[in-house]
Amino acid sequence: MPIDHHLLALFELLRIPTISGQSEHAEDMMKACKWLKHAFEKIGFMSEILPTGGHPLVYAEHLHAGPDKPTVLIYGHYDVQSPDPLREWTTKPFDPEIRGSNIYARGVADDKGQLYTWIAAVGDWLEEHKTLPANIKFLIEGEEEVATHNLVEFIGENQSLLQADICFISDSHCLSEDQPLIDYGLRGIVYAEISVHTFPRDVHSGIYGGNVYNPLEVLAKILSQLKDERHLVTIPGFYDRVRELSREEALELAESPFNEEQIMRETGAKAVVGEVVYSPAARAGARPTLDVHGVWGGYSGEGAKTIIPAEAHAKVSMRLVPYQSADHIFQRFERYVLSLAPDGVDVDVHHLSSGEPILMDRDNKFFKKAELAYKKVFGKKPLYQLSGGSIPITATLKTLLNMDSVLMGYGLPDDGLHSPNEKMSVSMFKKGIETNKELLSLLAE
Amino acid sequence: MPIDHHLLALFELLRIPTISGQSEHAEDMMKACKWLKHAFEKIGFMSEILPTGGHPLVYAEHLHAGPDKPTVLIYGHYDVQSPDPLREWTTKPFDPEIRGSNIYARGVADDKGQLYTWIAAVGDWLEEHKTLPANIKFLIEGEEEVATHNLVEFIGENQSLLQADICFISDSHCLSEDQPLIDYGLRGIVYAEISVHTFPRDVHSGIYGGNVYNPLEVLAKILSQLKDERHLVTIPGFYDRVRELSREEALELAESPFNEEQIMRETGAKAVVGEVVYSPAARAGARPTLDVHGVWGGYSGEGAKTIIPAEAHAKVSMRLVPYQSADHIFQRFERYVLSLAPDGVDVDVHHLSSGEPILMDRDNKFFKKAELAYKKVFGKKPLYQLSGGSIPITATLKTLLNMDSVLMGYGLPDDGLHSPNEKMSVSMFKKGIETNKELLSLLAE
Repeated sequence: MPIDHHLLALFELLRIPTISGQSEHAEDMMKACKWLKHAFEKIGFMSEILPTGGHPLVYAEHLHAGPDKPTVLIYGHYDVQSPDPLREWTTKPFDPEIRGSNIYARGVADDKGQLYTWIAAVGDWLEEHKTLPANIKFLIEGEEEVATHNLVEFIGENQSLLQADICFISDSHCLSEDQPLIDYGLRGIVYAEISVHTFPRDVHSGIYGGNVYNPLEVLAKILSQLKDERHLVTIPGFYDRVRELSREEALELAESPFNEEQIMRETGAKAVVGEVVYSPAARAGARPTLDVHGVWGGYSGEGAKTIIPAEAHAKVSMRLVPYQSADHIFQRFERYVLSLAPDGVDVDVHHLSSGEPILMDRDNKFFKKAELAYKKVFGKKPLYQLSGGSIPITATLKTLLNMDSVLMGYGLPDDGLHSPNEKMSVSMFKKGIETNKELLSLLAE
Repeated sequence: MPIDHHLLALFELLRIPTISGQSEHAEDMMKACKWLKHAFEKIGFMSEILPTGGHPLVYAEHLHAGPDKPTVLIYGHYDVQSPDPLREWTTKPFDPEIRGSNIYARGVADDKGQLYTWIAAVGDWLEEHKTLPANIKFLIEGEEEVATHNLVEFIGENQSLLQADICFISDSHCLSEDQPLIDYGLRGIVYAEISVHTFPRDVHSGIYGGNVYNPLEVLAKILSQLKDERHLVTIPGFYDRVRELSREEALELAESPFNEEQIMRETGAKAVVGEVVYSPAARAGARPTLDVHGVWGGYSGEGAKTIIPAEAHAKVSMRLVPYQSADHIFQRFERYVLSLAPDGVDVDVHHLSSGEPILMDRDNKFFKKAELAYKKVFGKKPLYQLSGGSIPITATLKTLLNMDSVLMGYGLPDDGLHSPNEKMSVSMFKKGIETNKELLSLLAE
């Protein structure tokens, strides 16, 4: 497969290990910012690296279309998830490679490849036409995967800089190579860590076992009480504010191809289970969920070690839907977990990050333009869905700037986001660039 | 504190990181064997390093007392537990140091310091008297902390080599610097690993959460069902064969100083909990227990990662009392854990190691001699107790050679076995050598 200059540029960006969750990558974050600033300047944009309380942002603008033309904000993120477990990667996560019809690298689909379709489209357009059909601003974030509060603060303090009629975000996926998809709602998230401490140091199970609390057992009891047998979250009040779907949305959901077979095919799971009265598509987008992401404590090495460890830990997140609020749910979660702690055991709940759930105004004219652009390139109208994932910026733009976001992705469901061997289809990358160019031409109308 | 030649020798042995549970230490194991062989030869014993299916054994003998004198087997182990978490050690675990009245090093109490009291006593005796009052054999093991089947096989194949009238073992502790203790029973152990697998790779919780089993949650549910609210193990049939105590034993237990205050002081726990109808001393020695030693799975790094991991694991052991059997309990455990696995989730239980529980014949004359030796040096008669820990060789000696073992330790309850900053009191080390010499003099009578 011939590698064009857009792919070559993307590969440069993919080689920078921008793992926002690991502090030793601070220099790589800055390296990626400089790379992006240079990429924007090369195509004729004014660009700046802007500091935040955490990893910096890259802002770029080209505002020469005139006041009668729309102003568009394009968002993406240059940070990626940790690539572990490393041993499960066929090739190194930060050494991108094309195998078959795909590019393999950490962050290629989430979100470097998708965000680059916009830089490429705008760059191609400027090269051909010397002007753009809209006033365009880019905001590229470095903390999407860790969901800090820094972006919210930045947007709050830079409202006029970011003002626009609409935000386009490509950080999601189509259903297949020929069925595009627009997300009109995104779940929020609350991410927390539970810690259990019983004594200052590990003790011998032969001497003290049977007489003291075992923190791993206390943690297991707590985690086992977060959902009931019907897969419902048991935190009191958890479902209090959950929005009911409209009739139209319920019908769309009923026709969603996201069914048991697809889940089993994509994940390799042998069973699909969840809240019984809801379909898989409803569980994935319209319902709040809770998952444990990691548990650690005690001895995990080779062989046998007979200790009762002094502490145990778990990472847990909850995905939220409108009209749940992240603060409210965290408080309920914390109160419930603490209520499960036995006397004489220290349990604490640490808040790691939050993002509010959001629902877009689908009647906004820019959704129509995105629909037309997708149809032109993919041959089919996009479906609309409530996404299961979370893109925290969308809630902030809505709240602070009253701005809707059109979530039009170029990934595929099996891209393996956050997993080993993350990939992006080369043809989806190219269709992405074409769709963005179609959309640019529609913006002028 | 002046360091005598016995302490100097012990320090050499402590510097060898003989972690039997970690295969990268194979060379250190052999180094310790050579050191021991040399130490035995230096005091006039014939010694050999004997291979097993795992780490080698060191055997030594001095059989010149004559056929009318008893033959005594002395057992010890040169392997140690892993020293992690390393950051909690004040000084390095394999760089022994005397601080205050204690020697600090991994393995100093369990069991290098204790086993060396015997080498020192026998060596001193030979230096002074040129002969020994009994025929003496040493068997020093390298897999006590990992409880493999290799020692059982070795003993089975070398019954005449090991034949003796009694076995003395110093791998336990006194109640205090002036209250010695003889263990007349030891619990057995079954050690297993539970693994839960749901899909071949980690998946994104925003996309698949709420629709698939989370292996960490499945594992938490399993672990939370191993004990009930009354702290009883829930494995069906677990208590079926548990031996009831005699009236004499119940009275001894009632007077045991191992109470709630002592447990809280030694561990730092804020609560003592266990089976309600039993005292802390009964729970620790006369009752079987279950403990989780480690749990791992998913993301445990810095910050937030939104995955549902593909697998989760736990290490679990059960301490057994007479007349439970390790095989029987493992089968019951495995069957019960598998019964808790939901359809569509792969759960498996892997057997790591076993040791049978044992009860000694307290009327054996060698118990009386040990009592007298202790009394001479410590000033007090030893108490008798059922130990909470496990020393697998005792069951094998009883079963295969019909040999009782006198478990007379020189540790203290707060030595921190298996924990950071393991220590042994210098005066207990010296009293151990003296007590062993007293016992040698009583053997000739």
